[in-house]
Amino acid sequence: MRRVLIVGTGLIGASVGLALKAEGFEGTVLGWDANESELAAALAVGAIDEALPNREAVLAADAHVVVLATPVMAILDWMQRLSGILGEGTLVTDVGSTKQEIVALASTLYNGEGQARLLAGHPMAGKESGGAALAEANLFHGATWLFCPAAVEGALEADWRAAVVGFGAHVRDIEAERHDAVCAWVSHLPQMLSTAMSAMLEDEFGADMDEIAGIGGRALREMTRLGASPYSMWRDVAMTNTENVAATLWALEQRLAYVRENLKTPGLREEFSKANSFRAGLGAAK
Amino acid sequence: MRRVLIVGTGLIGASVGLALKAEGFEGTVLGWDANESELAAALAVGAIDEALPNREAVLAADAHVVVLATPVMAILDWMQRLSGILGEGTLVTDVGSTKQEIVALASTLYNGEGQARLLAGHPMAGKESGGAALAEANLFHGATWLFCPAAVEGALEADWRAAVVGFGAHVRDIEAERHDAVCAWVSHLPQMLSTAMSAMLEDEFGADMDEIAGIGGRALREMTRLGASPYSMWRDVAMTNTENVAATLWALEQRLAYVRENLKTPGLREEFSKANSFRAGLGAAK
Repeated sequence: MRRVLIVGTGLIGASVGLALKAEGFEGTVLGWDANESELAAALAVGAIDEALPNREAVLAADAHVVVLATPVMAILDWMQRLSGILGEGTLVTDVGSTKQEIVALASTLYNGEGQARLLAGHPMAGKESGGAALAEANLFHGATWLFCPAAVEGALEADWRAAVVGFGAHVRDIEAERHDAVCAWVSHLPQMLSTAMSAMLEDEFGADMDEIAGIGGRALREMTRLGASPYSMWRDVAMTNTENVAATLWALEQRLAYVRENLKTPGLREEFSKANSFRAGLGAAK
Repeated sequence: MRRVLIVGTGLIGASVGLALKAEGFEGTVLGWDANESELAAALAVGAIDEALPNREAVLAADAHVVVLATPVMAILDWMQRLSGILGEGTLVTDVGSTKQEIVALASTLYNGEGQARLLAGHPMAGKESGGAALAEANLFHGATWLFCPAAVEGALEADWRAAVVGFGAHVRDIEAERHDAVCAWVSHLPQMLSTAMSAMLEDEFGADMDEIAGIGGRALREMTRLGASPYSMWRDVAMTNTENVAATLWALEQRLAYVRENLKTPGLREEFSKANSFRAGLGAAK
């Protein structure tokens, strides 16, 4: 692993570059982004050594490891383009938020005889605001980095796993279907919820924000923080994990209706009791 | 204002005591709590100078200012008991989460000729875990402290407002009906939502928390933090602001259904756009 190419040098991609350098990677990090200013920022903060000029240069880059750090639909696009070019000595890995479609595509285009390798991955790290300018070498420190491994892995997969451990992340393997189901609960639902809550409050208070900004405290800011997240990334999550996300939204709608109908009954006590148990369990786990 | 009595020496009540001392209050702070260990803790951390032994001692305490820092239903109880005992030279103030019932009761029992004064208040500060042991002198620093003032105020109200400003809080007056409507959106809805979400996840993952604890990141922890909040306090919010809380829950249910039905349509883009605007406006306001 001497030449690493990062496709998509936003927050996650640029943080991968910085984390590689921080752990002493001595090879070359190439980068490309569809957004020229993101690419320039990644170069400026030292996340990449060289900015590739265009898509053709990406296809011709001859890297040992290609990290796809774009939204999921673009990851699927790049997987298709690269599969015709890369050979067995190359590893493609990604950081996409959903895994089933990526793993399904990989099962035909990668990991076979004469094909490049693909290791599907997902670091559970990020910020509500993106961009290379916010990238950090320690973004993954203490975070879980999920992998959906193929049946057999080679030396490049081992190298990449070691690099990720070097980022300070906890590596955990998970089957793609389970990944998308669990992430719907713990990541995609919180995002859609915070977006819905923020959009609703924009309709209710947007014309005059001073009152709500003055009265609202930590609870308001916390529950709407993810409202700042970009559509461009989450559109692809909604597109590629639709059924799971819809199921969690439906479940929460039912739960809120139950709370609403039980504001004055012992049912509310039961909900608080379960919620208290969940938080105690979350704190005690792992 | 030389003798201050704090009824309810939990997180907020004990923090009021500590904040008074921190700003140089040289009088005596008396305290009482229905829970003996809370009362002992308040004394131990120096939030009160003297722990009253029982309810009779509270009624006989002869304080200039009585701070009611219990859940709302107990505030209403104390308002009734104290109104028959306290005279014009005394101010009762409270820190309750809802204000309409308190202000309505005050309009008959307080602020008239020969009656004690009452200034309804609500500091927008707290923690998901309560108790005097977590009390802090600077809990209110930078927070908004809302008041629902009576038509006319006297010297004791001015003293108490000055004390609150000395805590580092921003004082803001608001009409009680508006208070309960706005707080339903910015405080009570976030609480009920976080409770519902946590209770749902307890049902879904409670039997084995290691997986969800390992995979979930900041979004999960943030959206469920308030799930640790105690029923004892929030029951009274649900009881005394039922219609407003139900209306905000209903509105959010509708909004989540809209997002669910538009996961693959441009409607989702519009929701993210509104949510982004809300967060930008919240950051820019005030």
